[in-house]
Order: sequence, then structure tokens, then C-alpha cells
Amino acid sequence: MTAFPQPFAKQPLGEISAEIGQELHRFAAELYPICRSITGNGTRRTLTMIGEKIPLAISEVPTGTHIFDWTVPKEWNARDAYVKDQAGSRVIDFQQHNLHLLNYSTSIKKKMSLNELKEHLFTLPDRPDTIPYRTSYYKPEWGFCLAHKKMLSMPQGEYEVFIDTTIEDGHLTYGECYLPGRSNEEVLISVHICHPSLANDNLSGVTVATSLARTLTKMDRRYSYRFVFVPGTIGAIAWLARNPDAAKRVKHGLVLTCLGDKSGFHYKKSRQGDAEIDRAAAHVLRHSGEPADTMEFSPYGYDERQYCSPGFNLAVGCLMRGVWGTFPEYHTSADNLDFIHPEQLARSLRVCIEIVDVLENNRHHRNLNPYCEPQLGKRGLYGSTGGIDIGEQVNARLWVLNFSDGSHSLLDIAERSGLRFSLIRDAAATLLDAGLLSIGSGSTNDSPESLPD
Amino acid sequence: MTAFPQPFAKQPLGEISAEIGQELHRFAAELYPICRSITGNGTRRTLTMIGEKIPLAISEVPTGTHIFDWTVPKEWNARDAYVKDQAGSRVIDFQQHNLHLLNYSTSIKKKMSLNELKEHLFTLPDRPDTIPYRTSYYKPEWGFCLAHKKMLSMPQGEYEVFIDTTIEDGHLTYGECYLPGRSNEEVLISVHICHPSLANDNLSGVTVATSLARTLTKMDRRYSYRFVFVPGTIGAIAWLARNPDAAKRVKHGLVLTCLGDKSGFHYKKSRQGDAEIDRAAAHVLRHSGEPADTMEFSPYGYDERQYCSPGFNLAVGCLMRGVWGTFPEYHTSADNLDFIHPEQLARSLRVCIEIVDVLENNRHHRNLNPYCEPQLGKRGLYGSTGGIDIGEQVNARLWVLNFSDGSHSLLDIAERSGLRFSLIRDAAATLLDAGLLSIGSGSTNDSPESLPD
Amino acid sequence: MTAFPQPFAKQPLGEISAEIGQELHRFAAELYPICRSITGNGTRRTLTMIGEKIPLAISEVPTGTHIFDWTVPKEWNARDAYVKDQAGSRVIDFQQHNLHLLNYSTSIKKKMSLNELKEHLFTLPDRPDTIPYRTSYYKPEWGFCLAHKKMLSMPQGEYEVFIDTTIEDGHLTYGECYLPGRSNEEVLISVHICHPSLANDNLSGVTVATSLARTLTKMDRRYSYRFVFVPGTIGAIAWLARNPDAAKRVKHGLVLTCLGDKSGFHYKKSRQGDAEIDRAAAHVLRHSGEPADTMEFSPYGYDERQYCSPGFNLAVGCLMRGVWGTFPEYHTSADNLDFIHPEQLARSLRVCIEIVDVLENNRHHRNLNPYCEPQLGKRGLYGSTGGIDIGEQVNARLWVLNFSDGSHSLLDIAERSGLRFSLIRDAAATLLDAGLLSIGSGSTNDSPESLPD
Repeated sequence: MTAFPQPFAKQPLGEISAEIGQELHRFAAELYPICRSITGNGTRRTLTMIGEKIPLAISEVPTGTHIFDWTVPKEWNARDAYVKDQAGSRVIDFQQHNLHLLNYSTSIKKKMSLNELKEHLFTLPDRPDTIPYRTSYYKPEWGFCLAHKKMLSMPQGEYEVFIDTTIEDGHLTYGECYLPGRSNEEVLISVHICHPSLANDNLSGVTVATSLARTLTKMDRRYSYRFVFVPGTIGAIAWLARNPDAAKRVKHGLVLTCLGDKSGFHYKKSRQGDAEIDRAAAHVLRHSGEPADTMEFSPYGYDERQYCSPGFNLAVGCLMRGVWGTFPEYHTSADNLDFIHPEQLARSLRVCIEIVDVLENNRHHRNLNPYCEPQLGKRGLYGSTGGIDIGEQVNARLWVLNFSDGSHSLLDIAERSGLRFSLIRDAAATLLDAGLLSIGSGSTNDSPESLPD
Repeated sequence: MTAFPQPFAKQPLGEISAEIGQELHRFAAELYPICRSITGNGTRRTLTMIGEKIPLAISEVPTGTHIFDWTVPKEWNARDAYVKDQAGSRVIDFQQHNLHLLNYSTSIKKKMSLNELKEHLFTLPDRPDTIPYRTSYYKPEWGFCLAHKKMLSMPQGEYEVFIDTTIEDGHLTYGECYLPGRSNEEVLISVHICHPSLANDNLSGVTVATSLARTLTKMDRRYSYRFVFVPGTIGAIAWLARNPDAAKRVKHGLVLTCLGDKSGFHYKKSRQGDAEIDRAAAHVLRHSGEPADTMEFSPYGYDERQYCSPGFNLAVGCLMRGVWGTFPEYHTSADNLDFIHPEQLARSLRVCIEIVDVLENNRHHRNLNPYCEPQLGKRGLYGSTGGIDIGEQVNARLWVLNFSDGSHSLLDIAERSGLRFSLIRDAAATLLDAGLLSIGSGSTNDSPESLPD
Repeated sequence: MTAFPQPFAKQPLGEISAEIGQELHRFAAELYPICRSITGNGTRRTLTMIGEKIPLAISEVPTGTHIFDWTVPKEWNARDAYVKDQAGSRVIDFQQHNLHLLNYSTSIKKKMSLNELKEHLFTLPDRPDTIPYRTSYYKPEWGFCLAHKKMLSMPQGEYEVFIDTTIEDGHLTYGECYLPGRSNEEVLISVHICHPSLANDNLSGVTVATSLARTLTKMDRRYSYRFVFVPGTIGAIAWLARNPDAAKRVKHGLVLTCLGDKSGFHYKKSRQGDAEIDRAAAHVLRHSGEPADTMEFSPYGYDERQYCSPGFNLAVGCLMRGVWGTFPEYHTSADNLDFIHPEQLARSLRVCIEIVDVLENNRHHRNLNPYCEPQLGKRGLYGSTGGIDIGEQVNARLWVLNFSDGSHSLLDIAERSGLRFSLIRDAAATLLDAGLLSIGSGSTNDSPESLPD
């Protein structure tokens, strides 16, 4: 047995227990009621709950801090908000659903007519039963969101409007879980945590990422892993502005979002388009047993927008099931706990782990007997009866031997052969044990000398 | 407002008046009756009429001049030609249709039997109602072209054959309209003018090119434009042989032909295949709202044959609707004024102008805030309400910002985003005004220092 | 006429007589009964019979010779083998069909029960009427192969098992037919000869290769040709190990196999994937008039496995009709003389000859008049009447002229034009005669100085 570090191949990665989906959904349910935003106590509480499951370092960035072209805004917290009718009933009530309050709404306490009030109401006429999710982070405004049907049912008359929020100097808060590996090159997993009661976008991402981090804590890691739980846009920008050195060490990355719905998988490629993460994700999805599409990079979407801005141009893609803006529940109260499913969450986690497995085990080996095939039979690695099909294990060995010329990685070989990466990975391990391959160089600086530990 | 030269984006280029199609067709109708050839007075008269609409320099190249592997032939002019039957009726009459006379026919005056005459008659048995167009530029021969049905109706007997042409030392004539721009790099627009009474091939090209030139005279131009109106093959060869320096300055070029019929568009790529003109034409056609195909370069066709010969290999494509040799009216009397249509002519002109617009405005900018997105909202360039779709204008700005890294041109960005060039061009202009982009370098030497004016 | 060596274009290569298919099939029929293996007298006799048709040098490699990671095994010869029932009848009889004996079976003489015997019987339950082909070259074992139906019909009871084989120090035998050409660069044609009574795999390859060699002996050759008739795997490895210099001279190569069945053609590309042989074969098949597919290289298959091992990485593809392992007759007694057909054999030979024709005539010429088209008309190479279609011969001339810029070979031009190679080859010859092309440089060192003769 060689010293080849192959922890992933040796560990039962694929074994996602039947329980895990329920566990992921339960965690989402615990987080669901919290009123999150790009700043404030809801976001802090969310990070605290994540920190109970994985090691998490919390950063607080003061209001007014300059981060590239942006400035950290004042911190927003909401205490209460409602609209009462003439009978004194709360016809719109933040306590009932935090989507009712325009996120970052200013305070108000005033009586007004329905018509005056309507200037500040947001509804979805084409989906009249759902409450939309609306924000006004950078333009001071007050407002309510509600079901269109509900608004239509409100009679003319005077209404009492009450919003009790604070917008004050404070902080923007984000969390990081850093898991050092043999190499200091990093895999970045980024999840946004700024959405209030919305389940798929993005509590599904929060729970899958947390579980992925927990899985990785138990493993011997080739790469170092950094999970960042950040408010969307402004949080990713803050992290990038404050961590230029870590950003340079990012070798591969994924934004995780919308991973609990029943759609097939979608992987949006990094701006580079042919990065190892792009190829690894596409490979795993192709063999996932679920419908799966890859999408070209575009500059709109989630926080890959920042990681893939031209100054950084990091190899960060985005893994989703349903694609933002394309499913009717998107950014409405219909994106609730019924919209995400234990089975889909568990399978999403499994896909993430398999992508990590590719990154961990992808290397360039060299066939030590490059002239003709080595005689596998005398090593017990080839069937002794000739004339019949060789089977996929032997086939994988032939692929690894033929293409281990220093210029093809195991992922290249998996792609070219059409075989699943794990089969190629295992064939390489077998051939290494047989002394037929040189220990592979990876695309990382993970030689013994450079190990941080 | 920056000094960014963007005349085309600021000028109402797309506004092709409803009148223009009629105007183009009227000009074609004026030119139609003239008996043109690769030399002679018909061609001169055609150039005179073009010169009444745009500035045109006429060149006369003497018979016998060596132009590469060719020699300028003697000049041909036709005065009269007919075949009379025994009753003295002109059964074939050049005065009725100039296609009746074999182009470059020698003279003859002789009585002969029908059988002897038939050796010199050209017909189309499979399109028995139309007169074919035939030439014999380089082999001395006499002949008539006529409808096959007409030939079958001619009784046996003696016919009087009369052709009065001159083939004498003279000149080959071509015209050039040169419109200087800020750069001395040139856009070449080439049209052949040697076909007699044929409307689509190529009076449609003549009228569209003339109108395009007239449009360009009124504009501030980045590039210099050279319109050449030449006899096919020999005229293009003559121009290339006599203008080696101008040929070297050709940055982009188009041969215009067959632009009035009801077929969708066809763009035949330059020999280079991925030149900017090829990409610009394909882009505009993709968004033209008409069926459109691109064709790979081939060495047969129109004068792109010469511009794309391997010694020159210029970036010259060919824009058509119907493709030569593939529509039944091609090179017959059925390619007449009814076969070309005001609406198609006007739309063809519009496509030409849009292609020019791409060339004029295609540049490489640089995002001055390449780390993360700049905050568009504080500049009024992003909607203030979050949670909803951003719209295509904001989307175009994100595309321009993300890919303005010095290596992507605006056309690259339009192609990659799937958005229309004009949207990308306008987004770039807006971002330039906001100070978010550097002034772009084009692919031309149009820096202030190099301006000819 | 220039000194341009173009023997193939001038020779009636395409003329495969109607007789040839019968002749190929007759030769296969003569070879069919012989019991071949990777060593032994059957293989020797096969080579002797090939040597009666073409010049063949026989090599004998002693048992125990080290060839890369392998060792030449002991030589196997079979005298007799049978299973007798209690009545003394031979119920399985090597004399009836040599597939009945496990190839490389050890000797045995013993009475045993059916159950004990069955441990050594190979059948195909899903194709119960055919005898499978099985080998055990490297693991000492005895056994019989038979139709599954036959096995089921054998009653319980005692059987007399008799196998009389020798496995002794001896030799591995292979044959080479070397045909020197003007260049010492080689075209390798490799055929395996180790299969016993199996017709398509691979007597079809043996007969087609033999006939191809005979055809080539009569021609002036640009390349040198080396036909190797080798035992599969071990024979190819032996040849490569013993001929490193010849291996380095291999410029193009083909493994020929399964060329007599009624399937369309399949060409498996070399590991390089875009070698000239890959493009030549794909071109010829595209114009073959039969269904034809190209397959990407894979490291399982025939002896291309060795030629394309990463240390050699030779430009060797594999031409087949039916693909190994995919037709039900494969490696069974159903792959017999009825399964291969004179017409298919003849057409396979024709395709081989056309591929060789491409290799022999593919060159890079240079247009000596690269500025504009040369005037073909004055040389009689262009129709004198204008206005009509130019025809494919003139078209081919325009293609050759336009793309003979030093960077496009005639095969490149054939591919780009969509025209058949022979038309492009003939156009080039005509243009050479007219002094319009420079004598082409090939991709071989076939300048007069380097000629070996």
C-alpha cells in the first residue's frame, strides 16, 4: 500500500443515511420563522444556530465600512408592524408572516385612507394568494407585502399603519467555517443567509452546506475548506474585501442555493467556464440519476456574481435545483417548508459530497509501463479466461493505464471513457497498489513539503 | 458626457423611412434597361447615374493593361442585333430585351438556315418561357439567347442574322465612392455592375449600396468607407491590382448582391471565417426578424472570390437574400423588376446599416471597478426595489461590466449574453457616462493622433 | 508533365474486379479449418499460406523472451481432444470443430462424472446452438467449449475425457511483408492471426490485408508499407519490442479486422484522434456509399491497444465492419464462412485502397498566383460560356487554388469543400501541369535526397 493520500476513496462517502433528509428539513424548519435581512439580529441568530452544528467564526463589519465600491449600510431590526382596520383588527400583521413587512422598511405610525396606504402595498396580481418578498435596502421607504386577494378584500376607510423598526449604526454579520487540509489551497462554499421566511431560497442551501461541513470535519482533507454564510451581495462583497489573501487561495468554489425543491439539478458554470469545478460538477450530475442541466455563466444570479467579477474571476459555480426567477414560488410565501423535501435535500447533499470527492481525488498519474499494456493478468488484475467481455473494472484499469501520460487527470479519463469517476478513482488506487502508476501530482501544491500541518 | 466617439449609437440609424423601399426600387427601374457588360458605355452610363446620388470617382483602365494574371480586354459595345424571318419580322430582337444578345457577341450579317442558326442560340429547355443570360467575354463568338418556347415556334427556312457590335481597344470602367473616417482603416463595400437587364443580380445590390453610401455621408465615421462599383471578376481584379495600399487598409468588407427578392437572408462568410465582419453580420441577421442563414466560405460566387484569394485573404463576406444559382429566376429574364420588392430592398438596407453600426461601435472597454460589482443603485442604474426581475437594460449593464476585462469586445458580450448589440452598446455608453468603464480601444488605429482630418 | 510523383492518381486503383471478392472468400475458406493460437504450428501454416501470395519474412521468438512487461509463453500444439460417453461415442470432438477445445488447454486423460466434467465446460446459455471461443493462455487449465443445447442433452454417467496437447518451450511466430517506398516513413497494416476457425474475426482481415499488400507490390509507392501478421496482443507486443526503429518510422497505420460481415463500416480512431490516418479513413468512409461511423479511441479492442499505448502513441486506427463484442456471432462458431461475403470483402479492400490513395497523394501545394484567381479560361481550364454553372471539376480547381496557401493539404481542401479526395487530387494534378501550383511538400520526408533507393 502506497502513501498515496486518498481519504475520500477509502471513506464511505456515498452513504447518506435515510435519516439525513429528515434532519436537514428539521433544521430548515427551525430557521424558517426568523426574520433575516442583510443585517440585524435575525441574521445573528441564524449564525448562532449554524454554529451549534459546526465550528463557526463570526465577523461583525461596522456600518460605514468601505468595501470596494460599497459601504456597509446601517443595521436594520424590526420589532413589530401591522395595519389595523377601523375595527382595530390587524389585517396585515408582521407577527403572522415576516414577509408582510417590506425588508428594510422605515418606521411609521399614521392613520390614512386605503388609497394612501395602497401606494405602499406590494402584491402579485397574477399569483393572488401569495405574499411577495420585497426589499428596499438602499432607498428609505416603508411598505407592506400581502396577497393580492387580501388587498382586494380590504374595504375603503381609515387604516392605522404601524411599523416599528430601527435603522441605526451597527454591523453586518457573517460566519465562516474553516477546515484546514493538507494543502492551503481552498475550496469555497458560499451560502446566502439574508432571506427571511423563505425555505428553498435559501434555507435549503444553509442546511445542505452545514451538513456538508459537518461531514468534512470527520475526514482527512487534501484541500482546506471554507464555508461562508453571508448576506447576499453585500456580505459576499464584504468577505472578498476583507479576505484578499483567502480569495487568492480559492482553487474551487460553489454557491449553494435552492436545493430542496423537486426540480432536476442545474449547475451554473463559473465565469471561467471550463474550470475543474465546472467539469467535476457536470460529471457528477451526469451520473446523478436525476435530470440535470448545466448553464453557461451569466452575471446575474447569486453571489457567484461577486466571486466571478472580472477582478477575481474565481472558479466558483452555482449548484441549484430550481433556477432563480423561473419557478412560481420564487420570492413568495409559497417558498415555504412544504416546498422543500427531505429526499431532495439528502440527494443534493450527496451530489455535493460527490463533487468534493472528485476534487479530492483528481490527480495526474503516470503509467510506469507506458510501452504496450502491462500484463495485468499476472497481477490478478485481468480475467484469466479469454474470449469474453472484460467487465467495467478491468476496462477502467485499461483507461487509466492508457491515459496516465502526465497530461490527463483522472477526471479527464472519466470524461473521456464515459465511466463514473469513482470507478476510475478505484482503478487508479488498484494500479498504484500494484506499482503500475506513479504517485500522481494533483493540480494543487499538496506535496509533503507544503503541508501546513 | 465623455468624449467617447459614438456617432452611430447617437444617430437614428434604424429609422428606415417607409419611402426608402420605393426609392430603391425606382432607381433599379431607371437602371434596368441599360445594356451593361464588363466594359462599354452601358457600364459608364450606370456609373454616371450612381454618381448623381453619391460622390463617385470614375477610373478608366485601358485595354491591354496587365492586372495580375489577367489582361483588360477590348471594350464591347452593341448597337443593334436581330434575327429576321423570311417575312422580314424581327423574331429575336436586341431592342426588345438586351438579354437576347450573347454578351460580348461578335458582329455578323448573314443569311442562314434555322439549323445553322441554332448552333448559336441559347435556350433553357426546362424553363421554356425565359431568356437565359449568357456571355462569352474571352472567346470570340456570336449568338442569341431566347425563350425555348420561342425557338420551337420558329419554322424552318432562311433567317437574316444581324449583329452590330464593336470590340475595340478602349477601357474597363469602374467607380469608387470614398468616405474618409477618423481612422484610415477602411470598410470595403463592393458591388458588381456588369449585368445587363437583371434586377436582383445585381441592380438590388447597386441601389442598396448607393443608399448605404448616401446614409454614411451624413454621419461622423470611425472607419473610412470605400464603395467600389466594378464589373464582376475582371473589375475587382483591376481594382485590387491598382490599389494595393487601399487593399491593405481594408479591415472589413461586404459584397452586396441579390438583396431584393423574397428569400430570407444569406451571409457567406469571408475566407477567414471568424472575422469581425463575419460575426457582426451573423449577429445582425440573428436579430433581423427574418429567416437567415450563414454559409461557409467557398471559392465560387461573387467578387469575394478575388478579395478572399489567398494572397489577399481580406475579411470580406457576401450578403445576399437568394443565393446565386439556387433560385429559378437566376440569370434569366425572370430576374426582372417584378422579382425585387421595395420592402425587401429597404430591409436589406437596414441590415447593412446595422452591420455598419456594429463595426462602428464595437470596442474593448475595461471595467474600472473590476472587484465585485460596482453599486449601480447609488448611480440610479439599478432598481431600488429588491426581489423582482432586473429587466434587460440592467442585465445588459451587468454583462458589460462583468466582461469588460480588456479581452471581450462589445460584440463578444452581445454574442455571449444573447442580447442584441444595440442594447449592449447603449449599456456601455451609460456606464461610460457613469465613469465605470474606461474609454474602449477598438480594433482600429483610431486614436486621436492617427486621425486623417 | 511535371515530375510530381503521383503514382496512385495515375493508376486504376478503384478498379476492384468482380472476381476479387470470390478470391478473398476462397482464401478465407482455405485458412478456416486450421487450429490457430498465439503460438504453434497452426499459426506457422497460416503464415506459410500467406507467404505463397506475398513476400513474407517469418520471425520466431523463443519462449521466455522478455518483451516489455511480458514473457513469450511456451508453445502450444493440440493433437487430439474428445469427450466420449459410456457407449464410446465422441460427444465432444476437437476433430469436428477446433473451437471445442479450450485454446491453450492442458492435457488430461481421465474418466469422470458429468458433474465433474461440467466444471470444465464452456457454453452460451443465451445462444444455445453455438460453440463459444474461449482461451486460457496464461492460467494452466483444461476445458471444452460446446453448444449449450448439446450439454443439456448429455445424460448423467461416466465420461472419458482425453486432451492431447503439448505446452513446451518453442516459439512465437509472426510474419512481415515490407514494401519499400520512396520515403522510409512507414504505413503499418496489422492483422491478428491467432484465432482458430473464426471467419470474420479475423480471416477477413487476413485476406483483405494480403490482397492489399499484393496490390501495393505493383505500384510506385511514396511510403514504405509494412504488413504485420501477428498473434493478437502478445504478437503485437513482441513486434514492437523487437522493432523500436521501425515503430518510430510508422507515420500512419491500420489494424484490419471483421471486414466480411454485412454491417456498415466502423473506423475506430487512433489515440491521437486527429491523425492524418483518422481523417483519411473518415473521408473515404464518408464517400464510400455504405453506412459508416467513426468511433473515438478506447483502450480495449484489437492490437491498436498496443500501438496506441502511451509510450508509442502511434497514429494507428482500426477499420472494421461489425464491431467486436456487438454482433451475436462474435467469438462463436457462428462466425463462420457463411457469415462473411465476397461483396463485403471486396468493398472493404476497395476502402483500404482508397485510404492508401489519400495517404499517397495528400500534399501541401502552394498557389503560384495567389493574388486574385488566375485566368483559368486562357489555359482551357474554365468554360468559355459565362452565366452557367461551372461544374465540379472547375469547382475543384477553384478550391485547390484558393486553399493552396501552404497550410492546407489536399485532404484539408477535400474536407472543407465537401468534394471527394480523388476530385481534389485530380484538380491539383491539372493545376500542377498548368504551372499554377508549386510541387507540394508532403508530410513525409520524401524529397529526392532522402530516397532510400
